[in-house]
Amino acid sequence: MSSEFGIVIHGGAGTILRMSLTAELEAQYRERLQASLAAGYEILEKGGGGLDAVCAAVNVMENSPLFNAGKGAVFTHEGHNEQDASVMDGRTLECGGVASVKRIKNPVDLARLVMEKSEHVLLCGEGAEAFATKYNIDLVDADYFYTDMRWNQLQKALEKEKHLKTDYSQLDHTPDDKHGTVGAVALDKEGNLAAATSSGGMTNKRFSRIGDSPIIGAGNYANNSTCAVSTTGHGEFFMRCLTAYDVSAMMEYKQMTLTEAAEIAIVEKLTRLGGTGGLIAIDRQGDIALPFNTPGMYRGYRLANDEPAVAIFKE
Amino acid sequence: MSSEFGIVIHGGAGTILRMSLTAELEAQYRERLQASLAAGYEILEKGGGGLDAVCAAVNVMENSPLFNAGKGAVFTHEGHNEQDASVMDGRTLECGGVASVKRIKNPVDLARLVMEKSEHVLLCGEGAEAFATKYNIDLVDADYFYTDMRWNQLQKALEKEKHLKTDYSQLDHTPDDKHGTVGAVALDKEGNLAAATSSGGMTNKRFSRIGDSPIIGAGNYANNSTCAVSTTGHGEFFMRCLTAYDVSAMMEYKQMTLTEAAEIAIVEKLTRLGGTGGLIAIDRQGDIALPFNTPGMYRGYRLANDEPAVAIFKE
Repeated sequence: MSSEFGIVIHGGAGTILRMSLTAELEAQYRERLQASLAAGYEILEKGGGGLDAVCAAVNVMENSPLFNAGKGAVFTHEGHNEQDASVMDGRTLECGGVASVKRIKNPVDLARLVMEKSEHVLLCGEGAEAFATKYNIDLVDADYFYTDMRWNQLQKALEKEKHLKTDYSQLDHTPDDKHGTVGAVALDKEGNLAAATSSGGMTNKRFSRIGDSPIIGAGNYANNSTCAVSTTGHGEFFMRCLTAYDVSAMMEYKQMTLTEAAEIAIVEKLTRLGGTGGLIAIDRQGDIALPFNTPGMYRGYRLANDEPAVAIFKE
Repeated sequence: MSSEFGIVIHGGAGTILRMSLTAELEAQYRERLQASLAAGYEILEKGGGGLDAVCAAVNVMENSPLFNAGKGAVFTHEGHNEQDASVMDGRTLECGGVASVKRIKNPVDLARLVMEKSEHVLLCGEGAEAFATKYNIDLVDADYFYTDMRWNQLQKALEKEKHLKTDYSQLDHTPDDKHGTVGAVALDKEGNLAAATSSGGMTNKRFSRIGDSPIIGAGNYANNSTCAVSTTGHGEFFMRCLTAYDVSAMMEYKQMTLTEAAEIAIVEKLTRLGGTGGLIAIDRQGDIALPFNTPGMYRGYRLANDEPAVAIFKE
């Protein structure tokens, strides 16, 4: 499956069943996944950088209400949207992330700005938004992120909570809501790997919870000597497992193939701890892996001189 | 050097030179390092848990104005204190962290509460403080963190900045100021490993920068099958290297000893990227490592049935 260049994307993993997805909605998802792939692939084909490609692919999903990132971000308990994102450049091991930002249209672009313009790896909350303002990134009104679907998900979660003897720290963990990250990984013609991840977090989340998406090594990792990885799923488990870095470490230290390392990270290690989700990965040979332990994962890939492929369900 | 149980601590690494430390101040540091070791060791000796021991040891340093964590935290650009901390339990791989908290006396205790009482790994800012309030942790007045030394460091950094053509994202990176994290790792009599890290961040920091201290795998990691690690230094480099987890990964995947893995993580990998700092580590056999690539690191250890040892300089 080796390839000169290529891109792999995901739009979230979870309990995505054929019966719960109308034909119309499925078609919409497939169309946006294709558009995301096309945006990234076009850059790679023209000889552009992997980092440009993954950000362009993620932007397409961030700008769609279908995915839990950017425009389609889920609501927190208080009715806000708090988003996390990160990027990593496999050539330099430089990386950047933002956590709990409320008014950034494309969090992945701000993560890239943190990488390129600050000395830091991770900025959060209003501090990250102040940083955005310094670099003339417009803050959008909170209204921009309003969608009926996400608002109704929050109302359902709040309603359900009322009937539960629930702890303040408990969240709504219906599988539909919790797996909504988007991400992309790419190998460019120069042989550089890059990864980008962006997430709206969890419906009804509280206490400015930060998930795995902005955490280098957990939700995102790229290293030219091994692979690029972006994860999606129940973030806390990816943080405990350092899943994204772990795929790279197993390749580097145990001489595993990308496929072996990615399978072990999800099917064995994540599953053993009780975590659910998946990852996408590409290595320097253009081999790819897309393992997940949930019924479905919105995903796609396109390798050099080949047709794009998108899929949603398991088989 | 194997031992039935033991504790290792650090109080920060950096340009600590004999000539710049008065005899009186050096004696104060040594006394507090001894007190921190004693607090943790006493718990271990009585058969208490590693997690209790590392938190007790860190609390002693957090409560002292000498270290850049808790009471002695440095000031941000705006004159606040924004602290980061995390803990990890090597038996369960459970972990918790808080980032950018302003009014928590002992951030490491709140990190432990996140681990034990929430479903999350990382909470930030006012959300984390709201979580603290739910669990009846008193918020302290910001005045609590005022110390002349740290305030003067900020004034010096601000003054210096005026004379520099500095970018908004640039920080004061005088070596004295940037390496102030504290941490502890322990092996208890049950064979459980634990790690805790707490940091006041960087003098004059902006934009709610989050360092490596609250990031599992970067500034802190514990796994009963390998080791417990706490790092200190220029946090961004530890985040890019996943230093704490990397020590564990090299032990697990390459069958390295703790000493070999810890040395490679600091002396080779961190140094190659241009990072400065150190780490403390202990493994399940009670072997320990304390590598650093700076002129000094406040540090100490005490192993079962042995005398405590503390040190500051390189020799």
